[in-house]
This record gives sequence, structure tokens and C-alpha cells, in this order.
Amino acid sequence: MSTVETRLRELGIELPPAPKAVGAYVTVIRTGNLVVTSGQLPWVGDKLLFTGKLGSELTVEQGFAAARQSAINAIAQIKSVVGDLDTVRQIVRLEGFVHCGPGFRQHPQVLNGASELLNAVFGERGRHTRTAVGVHEMPLDSPVQLIVWAEVA
Amino acid sequence: MSTVETRLRELGIELPPAPKAVGAYVTVIRTGNLVVTSGQLPWVGDKLLFTGKLGSELTVEQGFAAARQSAINAIAQIKSVVGDLDTVRQIVRLEGFVHCGPGFRQHPQVLNGASELLNAVFGERGRHTRTAVGVHEMPLDSPVQLIVWAEVA
Amino acid sequence: MSTVETRLRELGIELPPAPKAVGAYVTVIRTGNLVVTSGQLPWVGDKLLFTGKLGSELTVEQGFAAARQSAINAIAQIKSVVGDLDTVRQIVRLEGFVHCGPGFRQHPQVLNGASELLNAVFGERGRHTRTAVGVHEMPLDSPVQLIVWAEVA
Repeated sequence: MSTVETRLRELGIELPPAPKAVGAYVTVIRTGNLVVTSGQLPWVGDKLLFTGKLGSELTVEQGFAAARQSAINAIAQIKSVVGDLDTVRQIVRLEGFVHCGPGFRQHPQVLNGASELLNAVFGERGRHTRTAVGVHEMPLDSPVQLIVWAEVA
Repeated sequence: MSTVETRLRELGIELPPAPKAVGAYVTVIRTGNLVVTSGQLPWVGDKLLFTGKLGSELTVEQGFAAARQSAINAIAQIKSVVGDLDTVRQIVRLEGFVHCGPGFRQHPQVLNGASELLNAVFGERGRHTRTAVGVHEMPLDSPVQLIVWAEVA
Repeated sequence: MSTVETRLRELGIELPPAPKAVGAYVTVIRTGNLVVTSGQLPWVGDKLLFTGKLGSELTVEQGFAAARQSAINAIAQIKSVVGDLDTVRQIVRLEGFVHCGPGFRQHPQVLNGASELLNAVFGERGRHTRTAVGVHEMPLDSPVQLIVWAEVA
């Protein structure tokens, strides 16, 4: 079993099937040594872990969990392209869009749910750049939308 | 005539001149085998096809048409760099920002206007990843802003 | 002294230390010939140059200055990876998120603060693509958040 898969097991994470697209696009693609996902939502099976806006409808803890789940789904997307997750040389970038109400400022705390998961799973190779932006209206009322870029062997 | 140009003709699409920048930047660039556009708006000549917010001022059908027009402009941008559109190996990514009012959730339906156009024009090579995010205030009151990434030979 | 460093000196710009991350991520990364930053804010030491929303709380001039400062910080991030800024072959992309109130449309004028700085510092190699999007709630109440992509030798 690969190092990354072992680490996932130690963390008690079972990778789900890579979630399907909700439109006329594909969920992940490889170009050269880069793999990039479409916007990932916190799917658990065919339901979102939470819906609603941070600040007005959801707590930071719920947002953290939604970001973590979206990152797990992003890893599943990457695996669907590369097969062996040990071929991931580096998680390059996490784009984080946070669905939030007026006055919300804790985007970083929410997105740490994804960042800490990537760091835990990939170790030094999980260290990534990040963007953190608020969104007033999100598709499917999702609390977060994440995009992950990875460099692969 | 190239395959892609033939397909455009079959679809009744005449590529416009690549729209100009609205600031101190360039509209498209190549780096290695990647071509990336600046944010594309639904220009038709020197006017936007529509202005306003989805949900409160524009219908999904108008948004769909605006996304389609923006994608046509993106193809014109890519052509201005590569010359021959048959050198496009893959449309890699479509970043979709949708200008919308409170409670709007149909970003995917709007962006399908761009995705379906890219799929129709480029076929299998048009299959792309996508992001879909709501924006409360957009430059020039544009209903959408799209960015297209392509891998070229 | 390198050409770019000379130009910075002529412009009266002293590069600050690259600002630190505000979460579980890194501030800049290299993948192949691309360098990409995390979201850059207008840090001056440990304070933001301004906070608040364009249109309702800040003027376009203040936004322009904030965008310029964020671009300076982005250059500092790139330097922290490449060492010699003359190895930058091209600034590829500037992603601009502008924190703004209702009805604000002057995102391009704000982001020109960053674009004109990049053009002044890097000359022809500073010509970049750009995205310009409004954000209703921004981390740390920052007026702008910028991401810079550079191609390096």
C-alpha cells in the first residue's frame, strides 16, 4: 500500500468515489505535470455535508468540516487521474471560496479545515499556496468551494 | 481550413476580433504549453450583450447567452496567440464568475452556455474543468466573467 | 545589481520581507517554470495599509494604493523563491479580488495600481493577463487580495 494511502487509513479516512460534475464539464484534468480539479463541494454520497452561509447560518466549526470534506473529495478526484497518490510530488495550490453572510471574516479558519487535511495526508508534499475569498451566493447553497492543483511525477 | 474553424462555421459562429483589455494588462498570454486568457466579458463589438445581475435583473437564458458569447471571445483570444486553433490539445479549465442577486443558485445552468459551446467547438478536446462562483459586483456591470485555460501543442 | 532590482531602486521601492501566511499554508511555491503566490494583502510590516470596502468606505485612490502595495508584496514573495528577480521571464497572470460595497464598478481602476507597478518594474516582461472580481466579505477586512503567477527561467 502506498505511503499516502497508509496515511489516509491512519487518519481514518476512506476516499469516496470522485464526485460527479453538476454541469457540462469534467471534474479533474491533467495538463503536463499539473493536475487541477473543478470546484469541489462537501459531498458525502449524494448530499452536501452542510448547506448555507458561514456567519449567518453555519458556525466556523461547520465550515471547517465542510472544507475538510471538500479536500477529501479533491484527493479522490486527483486519485481518479493519477491512480497512485504517491505520484503526487506537491500540492501546489488551494483556491478557497467561502459562502458567507455580512461581516464574516474568518475565511482562514474555515479553510484551515482543508489545509490541515492536505498537510496531514501529504506531509511536506502537502504544503500549498492558498487563496481565500468570500462569496455571497454559491451554487447549490454550498458553504465552500475548493479547487486543488497538484504537481505529479 | 482547420477542423476547429470548420466546426465553428458549421455552428454559425464567426470569431470576432479578440476584445481589448479594459486596463493596464494584456488579454491573453502563453507560458510553456499553456495559454490563459484574462477575464472575458460578453462583448459584441464595443457593447456587452447584456448587463446586470442574474436572478434580479437577467434570466438564466440571458446569462447562458452571455456565457456563450464570453466563451466565443475567449476562443478569439486563444486564436490570437496560437494562430491555428487545431493546435489546441485540450481546453483545461473554465473559471466562471457569475454576477448575481440574493438567493441565486443557478450558476451551473448559466455557465453551461460556455461549457456547451467549448464542447461543441473542440469536441473531446473541449472537455474542461470548471469553477462556478457568485459575484455581487462585477466590472462594467457584466453578467459574467470567464477565464479559459488551454493546453497547446 | 540585477536589472529588476535597479528598476525597483529607481522607483523608490524597497522590497519588504515576504509577508507570512495567515493560516496552514505557504505563501509562494514553484512548480516547473511557474511560480505562484498565495493571496497577497497590502501588508506594510504587520499592518494592512487600509481596511474596508471600496465604494462605501475607501476611495478608488486608496484601493489603487492597496493594490500597488499588494503587488510589491507579491514581488517579495517571488524573490523569496527565485532569489534573482532577473530570472523572471514573464509575469503571467494577476488575479484581482476587490472588496467592495453595493454598486461599485471601478475594479479595473483599483487593480491598475498593481498592473502599472508590475509593468514599471518588469517592463515588457511585466505584461500580464488579469482577472477582476468583486468580493462582498474579505479576510481581515482587506480592500484587495491579489495572486501573481510568474514564469521563471
